[in-house]
Amino acid sequence: MSTIYNFGAGPAMLPQEVLLQAQEELIDYNGTGMSIMESSHRSPAYDEVHQEASANIRSLLSIPESYAILFLQGGASFQFAMAPMNLLGDGQTADYTLSGAWAKKAIAEAKRLGTVHIAADCDKDRPTRVPLPSELDLTAGTAYLHVTSNETISGAQWKTFPECEAPIVADMSSDILSRALPIDRFGLIYAGAQKNLGPSGVTLAIIRKDLAEDAPDNLPSMLRYQTHIDADSLYNTPPTFGIYLLTLVTRWVSAQGGVDALDARNQEKSGRLYDAIDASGLYRGAAAPEHRSLMNVTFNLPTEDLEAKFAKDAATEGLKGLKGHRSVGGIRASIYNAFPGEGIDALVGFMKAFEGANG
Amino acid sequence: MSTIYNFGAGPAMLPQEVLLQAQEELIDYNGTGMSIMESSHRSPAYDEVHQEASANIRSLLSIPESYAILFLQGGASFQFAMAPMNLLGDGQTADYTLSGAWAKKAIAEAKRLGTVHIAADCDKDRPTRVPLPSELDLTAGTAYLHVTSNETISGAQWKTFPECEAPIVADMSSDILSRALPIDRFGLIYAGAQKNLGPSGVTLAIIRKDLAEDAPDNLPSMLRYQTHIDADSLYNTPPTFGIYLLTLVTRWVSAQGGVDALDARNQEKSGRLYDAIDASGLYRGAAAPEHRSLMNVTFNLPTEDLEAKFAKDAATEGLKGLKGHRSVGGIRASIYNAFPGEGIDALVGFMKAFEGANG
Repeated sequence: MSTIYNFGAGPAMLPQEVLLQAQEELIDYNGTGMSIMESSHRSPAYDEVHQEASANIRSLLSIPESYAILFLQGGASFQFAMAPMNLLGDGQTADYTLSGAWAKKAIAEAKRLGTVHIAADCDKDRPTRVPLPSELDLTAGTAYLHVTSNETISGAQWKTFPECEAPIVADMSSDILSRALPIDRFGLIYAGAQKNLGPSGVTLAIIRKDLAEDAPDNLPSMLRYQTHIDADSLYNTPPTFGIYLLTLVTRWVSAQGGVDALDARNQEKSGRLYDAIDASGLYRGAAAPEHRSLMNVTFNLPTEDLEAKFAKDAATEGLKGLKGHRSVGGIRASIYNAFPGEGIDALVGFMKAFEGANG
Repeated sequence: MSTIYNFGAGPAMLPQEVLLQAQEELIDYNGTGMSIMESSHRSPAYDEVHQEASANIRSLLSIPESYAILFLQGGASFQFAMAPMNLLGDGQTADYTLSGAWAKKAIAEAKRLGTVHIAADCDKDRPTRVPLPSELDLTAGTAYLHVTSNETISGAQWKTFPECEAPIVADMSSDILSRALPIDRFGLIYAGAQKNLGPSGVTLAIIRKDLAEDAPDNLPSMLRYQTHIDADSLYNTPPTFGIYLLTLVTRWVSAQGGVDALDARNQEKSGRLYDAIDASGLYRGAAAPEHRSLMNVTFNLPTEDLEAKFAKDAATEGLKGLKGHRSVGGIRASIYNAFPGEGIDALVGFMKAFEGANG
């Protein structure tokens, strides 16, 4: 079998070391005689995993004790509703930034539940981009400001987070753990695991504890952050195997040198691809240079036919998942933390050869 | 390493064949060169798994096309809220049966959301039991009748489901796929996967499609069954690895001869334990004989100290997880579909020896 590089947007590549360890101990975890996925969520074996997952996230992102680290279910799509249900009170307004497809979904759900003000709209800008902090039209006394830190589909990313009075609520599904964060500006960070944290089915939430206390009394238990804070994410059975894999991934992040080291590597990896785009006459970056994502490198070719041929030819050489999202087309190379540098070399080589043959 | 038998209530034992196959193909699924958990949820490789999961459940439980089969997240605890949010309209009443700890939780969540009538209450009965269909005090025009088909903590199980005008909504987390069901009596069946279906983090829902259509318009997308019906459980990224394991488990159920064959085996397995209890002077069954669960065999010893010694001594012989739930104490042997007959032999042998030494 030749090497496969999976450029898919998620569920995405996991570190090979993590998969190998999971495989080795799948039947017998740590001498318990059973799989970790067969262990009770109240067992000492699992509890150690659960506590380590939380401690590792806290350490890697330097999160103070005034924030809780939660492992939930339902992905970012569920957080689109849970966040306003808890944080957007009657008579309040929440500010949202509209930067692409994922922000639009978050806004649609919030609008069902309360009053939403669009603090910036660059949805239709081409090349694609996210707002600059200086462009925001914020509501006085807003409950929170919502941002989508990385638009997975368009390939645009916030480089600097606003400094504003209101807490920021951020969907970081596609760039969590890829860089250091000014945590104290955030009220809530949420992320589906399937890009930078582990398999799908786990949702990480990092929430400022005081904000969770103000949720309305009539919310169902499972929909309240406070329920999960009080129970240390063990109110009901959590997705134990997913959290186990997340623990292995956080260990791997530490072994790589932490988020600053990964940030540098992500700059370097994405930089090589953007350089290849900019040096070519065939490829055109989809995102504005100052907003280019380090996680999802998006670009176009002159015609849709040529884009289809590019993705198809690449796949035959083991470079899989390069077709852009069906809503926007084009080419997208998703290169999260676990994506190896050799895969970048392979894609750059392929791009040059493809341009030579088709340019 | 000596053999370990895990009597834990869940996450519980999985079929060894399933774990071995998952281990073998963890790094390279079906020649794709990647793990199934690294595959996009929109990829052909995963789509085949997803479709098979649904088709196998449909076939094993003889579910007609008028029902949808959904793979959700959040466990039964989340369904405690989602069910009334969708099915209990303004001005309507839902009937609930109170049969133990899990029914009580379902009722508490429903009461936050609408009008609940307790159609039967045997929560305090000892020995523990569930209501008989003949005991139900049903509301005319009730939205639905809620039952907890198997009370995992007390070890009492519904043997016959009511025939009533209203659709039954059933929490089957701890006995789904353990027996055939009269599907047409049910409006909604939901089950966390971690006992009979796979790892924690997947929730199976089987819903009569017409009932899903009546949900209120202002429900968030992720909280509407209709959203997931329309998208074939792919509205957002599902817990793909959990659904893959569920697919393997359903194949295993078929290979065992289907749910009727498992029902016969479950009768036989639990029967041997109940016989051992009834033949002894030391052990006393916790559930009324006609309501005894085939999945969770609960019993008591004369004192709490002796119960603690029983669980501790058993654990040293590889019989793990026998301590009853912390809320009720006693001993609980959870013996779901995948629990092997040899484990029953081992426990019966241990019970006799323990009685000889301590009786």
